[in-house]
Amino acid sequence: MPRSPARREGGALAWETLLPLGDGPAPLRDRLERSIRSAVHAGLIPPGSALPPSRELAETLGVSRWVVTEAYGQLVAEGFLEAVVGSGTRVPRHPAVSSEAAEARRAAPELRTPYRRPRFDLGPGVPDLRHVPRARWAEAVRRALDTLPGGEFTVVDPLGHPLARTAVAEYLARSRRAVVAPDDVVITHGATDGMAAVVAGLRSSGHRAILVEEPSWGRLREVAASAGLTPVPVQVDAAGIDVDRLVEAAARTGARAALLTPAHQFPLGVALSPARREAVVRWVHGVEGVLVEDDYDAEFRYDRRPIAALQGLAPEHVVLVGSLSKSMAQAFGLGWAVIPAELRRRIHLADRARPSVLDQVGLAHFITAGDLERHLRAARTRFRRRRAALLDAFARELPELAVTGLAAGMHAMLELPHGVTGRAVRDAASALDVAVSDLNRYRATATGEIGEALVVGYGNLDDALVDEAVARLAAAIRSAGSSAGAGAEPAGD
Amino acid sequence: MPRSPARREGGALAWETLLPLGDGPAPLRDRLERSIRSAVHAGLIPPGSALPPSRELAETLGVSRWVVTEAYGQLVAEGFLEAVVGSGTRVPRHPAVSSEAAEARRAAPELRTPYRRPRFDLGPGVPDLRHVPRARWAEAVRRALDTLPGGEFTVVDPLGHPLARTAVAEYLARSRRAVVAPDDVVITHGATDGMAAVVAGLRSSGHRAILVEEPSWGRLREVAASAGLTPVPVQVDAAGIDVDRLVEAAARTGARAALLTPAHQFPLGVALSPARREAVVRWVHGVEGVLVEDDYDAEFRYDRRPIAALQGLAPEHVVLVGSLSKSMAQAFGLGWAVIPAELRRRIHLADRARPSVLDQVGLAHFITAGDLERHLRAARTRFRRRRAALLDAFARELPELAVTGLAAGMHAMLELPHGVTGRAVRDAASALDVAVSDLNRYRATATGEIGEALVVGYGNLDDALVDEAVARLAAAIRSAGSSAGAGAEPAGD
Repeated sequence: MPRSPARREGGALAWETLLPLGDGPAPLRDRLERSIRSAVHAGLIPPGSALPPSRELAETLGVSRWVVTEAYGQLVAEGFLEAVVGSGTRVPRHPAVSSEAAEARRAAPELRTPYRRPRFDLGPGVPDLRHVPRARWAEAVRRALDTLPGGEFTVVDPLGHPLARTAVAEYLARSRRAVVAPDDVVITHGATDGMAAVVAGLRSSGHRAILVEEPSWGRLREVAASAGLTPVPVQVDAAGIDVDRLVEAAARTGARAALLTPAHQFPLGVALSPARREAVVRWVHGVEGVLVEDDYDAEFRYDRRPIAALQGLAPEHVVLVGSLSKSMAQAFGLGWAVIPAELRRRIHLADRARPSVLDQVGLAHFITAGDLERHLRAARTRFRRRRAALLDAFARELPELAVTGLAAGMHAMLELPHGVTGRAVRDAASALDVAVSDLNRYRATATGEIGEALVVGYGNLDDALVDEAVARLAAAIRSAGSSAGAGAEPAGD
Repeated sequence: MPRSPARREGGALAWETLLPLGDGPAPLRDRLERSIRSAVHAGLIPPGSALPPSRELAETLGVSRWVVTEAYGQLVAEGFLEAVVGSGTRVPRHPAVSSEAAEARRAAPELRTPYRRPRFDLGPGVPDLRHVPRARWAEAVRRALDTLPGGEFTVVDPLGHPLARTAVAEYLARSRRAVVAPDDVVITHGATDGMAAVVAGLRSSGHRAILVEEPSWGRLREVAASAGLTPVPVQVDAAGIDVDRLVEAAARTGARAALLTPAHQFPLGVALSPARREAVVRWVHGVEGVLVEDDYDAEFRYDRRPIAALQGLAPEHVVLVGSLSKSMAQAFGLGWAVIPAELRRRIHLADRARPSVLDQVGLAHFITAGDLERHLRAARTRFRRRRAALLDAFARELPELAVTGLAAGMHAMLELPHGVTGRAVRDAASALDVAVSDLNRYRATATGEIGEALVVGYGNLDDALVDEAVARLAAAIRSAGSSAGAGAEPAGD
């Protein structure tokens, strides 16, 4: 019997000790195979060592020879052991995985603690996580799985499944007054994904710059920049983006594309005025350009019915981008972009990673069953009530501060007293378990025409906690104000 | 009362005719608004035309004045109409959407007929569409929706949800003998998506070329090429990729990366021999390179248990790419890549479009409930039986042709008689409602060492149709052979 490698290195381990078979329901050959792997990984049988002939090992371990030849055979087939003519079976000399490395990789580290929203959630852009339509979505996916013909499980249309494109087109025509055929719709993972496809298409049609609102949501600016389009900021005022300045910036830079949030500007919360809507459409027609309309919370309007999408006024020049992320949740990973045919042809949609067909067909069932619009109506009612409670609380707790941007959407803007920074309030609020955003976070340029302010969301604010949330926010503002004052004075006591 | 624009152009239409309110359950203001939109879109109220004052229109239509002011107000807010001080409400002069353009876009064209697989499906790479685990997947998604904490609906981890990464790591360690921690796993849309991320990472770590099997699946070569890596083909023979030639090609081109299908080569169906497994691992260690292991149908092995993944022999140098697309269906849009930490740091994973969180957590539930492995076991049993029936049918119908590559997977290779081309057989088969692939489709270079052959899949072949499918294939081969003969000879009768 060959001496075991462990023995040769001075130890006294025999093969029966090196290769414990253990017990359990697994077949003997599997148990032997596992124990050989472990011994090799642990360095007990070093590279180059020979294993005993199968007949000998079978006798030693008290198993049939077939068990050993099967285990050896499997491991040889995998290249884990090698069979050398004339010298039996051995551990290859190539660098095997060290036991520590293998163990280190196998041990599951704490990936991260599950993400928790602060209890008093005034963070903007967060949907109502207490009212995600869990059961209705599960039903929509179940229906998709039940009804999708077998052949469609193996085809992925780069633009989206026809059922989803049709359902989204009908929904947008009905609800957003878009002028859109199913062919115009591309199913995306969300607004950022849609934007990425569109800016790539703009770049390859010769665009080099894109006009963006200032302030605005930074992620979409970054997506444009990383596709090679220079973002050109244009100031937003109480009537939305300043179209005179937009036209001027366009002329100066040659930009013929713009990214807008006309229904409810993010983060200022204003709606683009009717005159400016018309002016910006006139501009885009004139330069034969492209407006990207980010319709992110357009369904939520409180003083009138939702304003129709700008896209309906100029379907040949407007890309309409939307998603479920703000109205339902990011976890659904679904959105759409309505893209004019000429631009669509410029986009290499075949290379895109697409939402799963099942999710797409689930979306189609969800929309055609009326569940999306039912969810939006219920959300609008909840937001309207919560917004009223929030206004009351602001009037009581912070009567001296102006709250604007509340006609639509799920957020407002709160101007801060002189000398108090958004950043200081955000930090003080965070210590009180209150999430809130500093307006400065959304500026592309340092010189804003608006002073220090907070962006206050109420999408995910617990209705029972509105008063307490605003009381804590007021405390945070006072605290940030007094430390600002303290900092300016000589240190006291 | 102002003359209606239609009347001014010579028609006799009055406002009550131009703006029919129709009936139905919608409020009057909505019906009026809709009829104004239609009339403008249809060109009946041209750009620049004035609308009647609200009091007059209300009288004409027999509705309250409030109905008209509401409808005008909504349309003005949208920029669809404009309110001009001193001259009432009118249609703006900017180019409105023409009625034909709007109608053309709104009309839903036939997007495409639902995709149909041929009845006798010998197409390779198609999963068993009769046995998609529809109900179990619906249950997994329902569980994900039921159990995911609210806060997790709004967070998308670029590498994948921790539950999915953990479940996949455990599955791969258990089933594919991979040496992998949850941190090493990235959740993808599938093998192509995983490959796209990996080749981008290789490119940005300085790689300029990648060795690929010849023949092989072209899509992955394209993905590499479009990321800027030149694919360098290396011949495959009966023992898998020729590692001597691989080493030589690597030395010649400086390539330190290779894309392999060691478990069951696509399309030849051979397994990489134990000696070559060891040799290729030795090579990748020596050059400190990267092997991408495409584990596409490794779960299906018939002569022994599945061979462990090569990744387990060299986890610091092997990327293991897998998905549900071949074992379940593409419609799930889910896969994974196990990526060594150093390479993972080179990949801009934050920019990737990710599978929805719900799908990812659904995958985690599906795996931890044992449904994936149950499905794979059942599929293996079905494929084993179908493969036996297929071999019988080949022996009966085409005894003179060699069938290879049947030890694993869901496809085999059938060498064609001299003078018969794969393309001619494919076309003749197609006319008989038989899908089959021509080997030439997978060659990167024109000069193959293997002659004309078919790649015959049986993943989606109806068990009841095996004999008939092979009989039809035999007929297609005879027909392609006789037309080849006919073409070479002078035309007969």
